[in-house]
Amino acid sequence: MPTEQEILNLIRKITPDSKKYLHDDAAIIENNLVLTTDTLVENTHFTLKTYTPEEIGWKALAVNLSDIAAMGGKPLYALVSLSLPGKISLQWIKNLYKGINSCAKKYKTKIIGGNLARSIEINITIMVIGKVRAGLAPALRSNAKPGDLVFATGTFGDSALGFNVIARRLKELTKQSRPGLHKMIGIASSGKALLAMTHKKPIPQIEKGVKIAKSCKRVALMDTSDGLANCLIQIANESKVKIILDEEKIPLSKNVTVNLALYGGEDYQLIGTASINEIKKIKKIKGIHIIGKVLKGKGAFLKQRNSKLVKLDLKKSYEHFK
Amino acid sequence: MPTEQEILNLIRKITPDSKKYLHDDAAIIENNLVLTTDTLVENTHFTLKTYTPEEIGWKALAVNLSDIAAMGGKPLYALVSLSLPGKISLQWIKNLYKGINSCAKKYKTKIIGGNLARSIEINITIMVIGKVRAGLAPALRSNAKPGDLVFATGTFGDSALGFNVIARRLKELTKQSRPGLHKMIGIASSGKALLAMTHKKPIPQIEKGVKIAKSCKRVALMDTSDGLANCLIQIANESKVKIILDEEKIPLSKNVTVNLALYGGEDYQLIGTASINEIKKIKKIKGIHIIGKVLKGKGAFLKQRNSKLVKLDLKKSYEHFK
Repeated sequence: MPTEQEILNLIRKITPDSKKYLHDDAAIIENNLVLTTDTLVENTHFTLKTYTPEEIGWKALAVNLSDIAAMGGKPLYALVSLSLPGKISLQWIKNLYKGINSCAKKYKTKIIGGNLARSIEINITIMVIGKVRAGLAPALRSNAKPGDLVFATGTFGDSALGFNVIARRLKELTKQSRPGLHKMIGIASSGKALLAMTHKKPIPQIEKGVKIAKSCKRVALMDTSDGLANCLIQIANESKVKIILDEEKIPLSKNVTVNLALYGGEDYQLIGTASINEIKKIKKIKGIHIIGKVLKGKGAFLKQRNSKLVKLDLKKSYEHFK
Repeated sequence: MPTEQEILNLIRKITPDSKKYLHDDAAIIENNLVLTTDTLVENTHFTLKTYTPEEIGWKALAVNLSDIAAMGGKPLYALVSLSLPGKISLQWIKNLYKGINSCAKKYKTKIIGGNLARSIEINITIMVIGKVRAGLAPALRSNAKPGDLVFATGTFGDSALGFNVIARRLKELTKQSRPGLHKMIGIASSGKALLAMTHKKPIPQIEKGVKIAKSCKRVALMDTSDGLANCLIQIANESKVKIILDEEKIPLSKNVTVNLALYGGEDYQLIGTASINEIKKIKKIKGIHIIGKVLKGKGAFLKQRNSKLVKLDLKKSYEHFK
């Protein structure tokens, strides 16, 4: 069974045009238009028992909008492709669209078309077109430079905390081990899927993304859908720099541990780096936290409260939920 | 279990923006950009036993390009969203992309991004952005006017014939009834799905679509993915006109009956109507056939060889395969 990374590497290798157009999570074409697509699959990203159709609809659009936000763009239009089993009722579909439409309305996105197909499991693929401001350099992961500061648009770990609470309660109720819990909720693969189920209403940081892009001539930007640690590792790798995250400065929600914040994922905040001069402008945006710095070197590290540096490692991601 | 039409009616009702932007199978936004999306689902549109990955890849892109052709547009970019089960090998994905890429190359479409998700069944959703010529009115189904002639870009029924041949052979081999055959090939729902499996390499009529759109100030245009009869009924309904299809003039492939041509589907030709003056220009395009005329009134009719008029009726679509 090939891993996601192996498949992605293969696809990038055999789609030569993607190198030119695909920046991070979105592709940029003429007229400063940005394109992105994301999919929610039943039992991978949600189950009908744990999500209402409104929540699924909101999330299916919001995860796309978060990708547009991570490019400093504004969403314009969306196409919605639904693959649905015969058992799904008209009322369920109506409620799904309630969720999609309320997210679309809030973030000024027009649903202009889509497709309908028959399937065994629910699959919702949304494609969003947005616009970045003319003349602005795209907010890429590879833009970080030594001397930059690292900023974040909000708090971390809420989603992962939700997962842990749910998992603990289920464990108490059922006396099941974690693999048993996964099986019970119908999840075939990783803890990631179960985790994804706990963050029901991601808030795409469109407004902050646009303000950040406007404030800077150069900014590295990314959304934290795959976790704070993953985000910093990617920026460090793609910019060929070293990033130091300051444990003391991580904005944590109540009851959230640092490990949850680092490896939890599904927070849909933006993380970025910019020069000290431009950080002054970014700091004026409400809710911005400075959480670290960029140095010459490579890799992403956590500077603990005791000043010890610990390398951030994606392999730890789910061990921390044990 | 709601029908496709019920679901589509509901979705159109609750997505108000689609009325403004969604024309026929594609949406038109600023800068004459056209957007469309289409999905192939395992066991609905193909099975791994009846299709090679190259064929699935070609078809997944080609059905989208056919929608762009039906708007008189040229494709520019595509995003590919794959939902794949763990059992799928890297080699299979590589071959799928061989099919996608060969279709993309032939029709000058750039694959610029996409998404990857885990699923139980294979789901390939492609979104294509194309361009219509500046200043041209879109080639809509609602454009037909009394006095127009009806034209087609190619022959009909090949796909349906393929289905009948396969079904007959399977029947001989297995002594199964048609429902038994469906079950055997793993098809849960309609004959449509089995039919879809026989047309492995649809050829989107991009070049002809562009030439037709250039030749006319006003043209009704549609692709015949759902069959010739369905196409004419839709144009008649949306243009509020009566259409007479001349049985003698239907371009049939060898061994294809009129009923197969009418109700078979999956041919991916273009059907249109234009004024007699503009038809003179369209007729110069290679492979164009004049197959009928547009009158005041409503409904689509077949003028049989004996001059009797028979109303075209979608409910007949699959009865004819018995």
